[in-house]
Amino acid sequence: MKSFIFNNVFLKNAYTCVGPVEGKGPLKNYFNKIYDDLYLGQKCWEDAESKLLKEAILGVINKSDEEIDLIVSGDLINQNAVSSYAIKDLNIPYIGAFGACSTMILSMIIGANIIESKNAKNVICATSSHNCTSERQFRNPTEYGGGKPKTATFTVTGGVACQLSEKGLIKITRATVGKIFDSTLNNPLDMGSAMAPAACETLLEHLRDFNLESNYYDLILTGDLSDMGFKIVKDILTEQKVFNANYYDAGLMVYDIKSQKVFSGGSGCACIGVVSMGYIKFLLENKKLKRVLLIGTGALMNQMSVNQKKTITSIAHAIALEGVEI
Amino acid sequence: MKSFIFNNVFLKNAYTCVGPVEGKGPLKNYFNKIYDDLYLGQKCWEDAESKLLKEAILGVINKSDEEIDLIVSGDLINQNAVSSYAIKDLNIPYIGAFGACSTMILSMIIGANIIESKNAKNVICATSSHNCTSERQFRNPTEYGGGKPKTATFTVTGGVACQLSEKGLIKITRATVGKIFDSTLNNPLDMGSAMAPAACETLLEHLRDFNLESNYYDLILTGDLSDMGFKIVKDILTEQKVFNANYYDAGLMVYDIKSQKVFSGGSGCACIGVVSMGYIKFLLENKKLKRVLLIGTGALMNQMSVNQKKTITSIAHAIALEGVEI
Repeated sequence: MKSFIFNNVFLKNAYTCVGPVEGKGPLKNYFNKIYDDLYLGQKCWEDAESKLLKEAILGVINKSDEEIDLIVSGDLINQNAVSSYAIKDLNIPYIGAFGACSTMILSMIIGANIIESKNAKNVICATSSHNCTSERQFRNPTEYGGGKPKTATFTVTGGVACQLSEKGLIKITRATVGKIFDSTLNNPLDMGSAMAPAACETLLEHLRDFNLESNYYDLILTGDLSDMGFKIVKDILTEQKVFNANYYDAGLMVYDIKSQKVFSGGSGCACIGVVSMGYIKFLLENKKLKRVLLIGTGALMNQMSVNQKKTITSIAHAIALEGVEI
Repeated sequence: MKSFIFNNVFLKNAYTCVGPVEGKGPLKNYFNKIYDDLYLGQKCWEDAESKLLKEAILGVINKSDEEIDLIVSGDLINQNAVSSYAIKDLNIPYIGAFGACSTMILSMIIGANIIESKNAKNVICATSSHNCTSERQFRNPTEYGGGKPKTATFTVTGGVACQLSEKGLIKITRATVGKIFDSTLNNPLDMGSAMAPAACETLLEHLRDFNLESNYYDLILTGDLSDMGFKIVKDILTEQKVFNANYYDAGLMVYDIKSQKVFSGGSGCACIGVVSMGYIKFLLENKKLKRVLLIGTGALMNQMSVNQKKTITSIAHAIALEGVEI
């Protein structure tokens, strides 16, 4: 078995902040802070994203009674630069992680292992994304007057951080690190379809490794598979006879897809981040959910690989959160 | 104390492969494979770098009697794409790490914690860099006829992988995860000077945390500080009264700086990687060295942040290797 077991790791504090579009979405009451301005008063979008991430990290530091030993963070921007500039003044050791849009879950898996190994007591795991930094980096220049297909997603503007600790009311019980899946697709405007099989592989591996039925979890939540990828996952799970999964995707929760102009749903590192550390954490704390499996999904390509017509490789990492009986 | 202690982690197998310039350097006899062609028979430099990394990982897999549970890897190329394409067909769970040129040491620290937490028995930690992928990504377009200042470094073309395990003849004893240091400098052609203070901070923190004298280690080796950064580190260590350090930099070992046209030394993720997993591992195994502290150094900027005139943030991660008495 290659999946991970944690005996001494808990999710404690979390903090989420989002931009104007997310702040008008169905989960608006579950975020700690909503910014009306995509620039957040900064000079450029990259600085705005760094500010979102720093706000989230400081939000957790302010909530915490303990000293933070380590930050694990990453983002979509080249060389994780948003994380570097967000964290540089905090004087806390920093591990950079990269899993594209699965980075929040990957950061939590790395952080959980370091607590489990007794090398840290309190670790902040964090990530961010920003609609405009992603558009600029991945989809600029756009063709003159060019529209987007309905398979495209809308990058969530948000920063999210959580504190993993040796004590808490939500236990981190298990994790499965994903294998890289070659989607054989190469349309960067349909990453949901490219990532959906990776999510299924990781979920099925997780269930096999722990000999669990899919309905063991009250909720299985993928990160940002879009309307397209969500349907593919449901089809694969039906085909694989995983009938009982209560399965949903964070990118379909963070926006009202019918009324907000977000194509086929939300995406980006912050997507599963703000949904899970805002809304899902609330449901776990209030016993509306007892066991949740978060599956972060990431497309591991870059602009150069798209230009070189390479197929999109993808990955999915899973982590299980369970409410503790008191 | 924020540094890490490992009780059950060992460095077992390693494999290094390099390009033509490194293959003519002073350490040529300590690499497993030397390629004469920068393309390695591939269609583009990015594929060549992926091949170097995959060769190194397969080299370790072939040497190993055990099943590999996990690969931790990262590289300099946007979104760690070189690692993704190198690892995609190996069917092994993958954690993406990013620490710029400190990535080899960061990967080893993450891998060591996962073994220490008992969640894996055999982890491959890997990285790569390629002179031409770095030049294309970070320094293209160059000005017409533009030369480089003597502070510039020469990115090492190489792939490196090692196997961390529960048994072995070289013990991973300690590690210190670095904090991000704002160099206040912004010359991307003098990254040695920008990273040198980060290396000193991590070294001094490491010595303080474990109450060690600097001469506890037979060798303290930084990653790629260049001739410039090397001198700065020596000055700071003298100022801080760390007199006894047997200190050197991998970027000054991998090339003959006087005869090879490499500006002020080697750099890139593979620099400390191929030097430590080739030459230093050999010296440890043959009892020429007993205790070594590797300090990987990384400049955490990207092209956009350079264009935005941001100062260069840097980081250094340290890991200690000690020969086991039989």
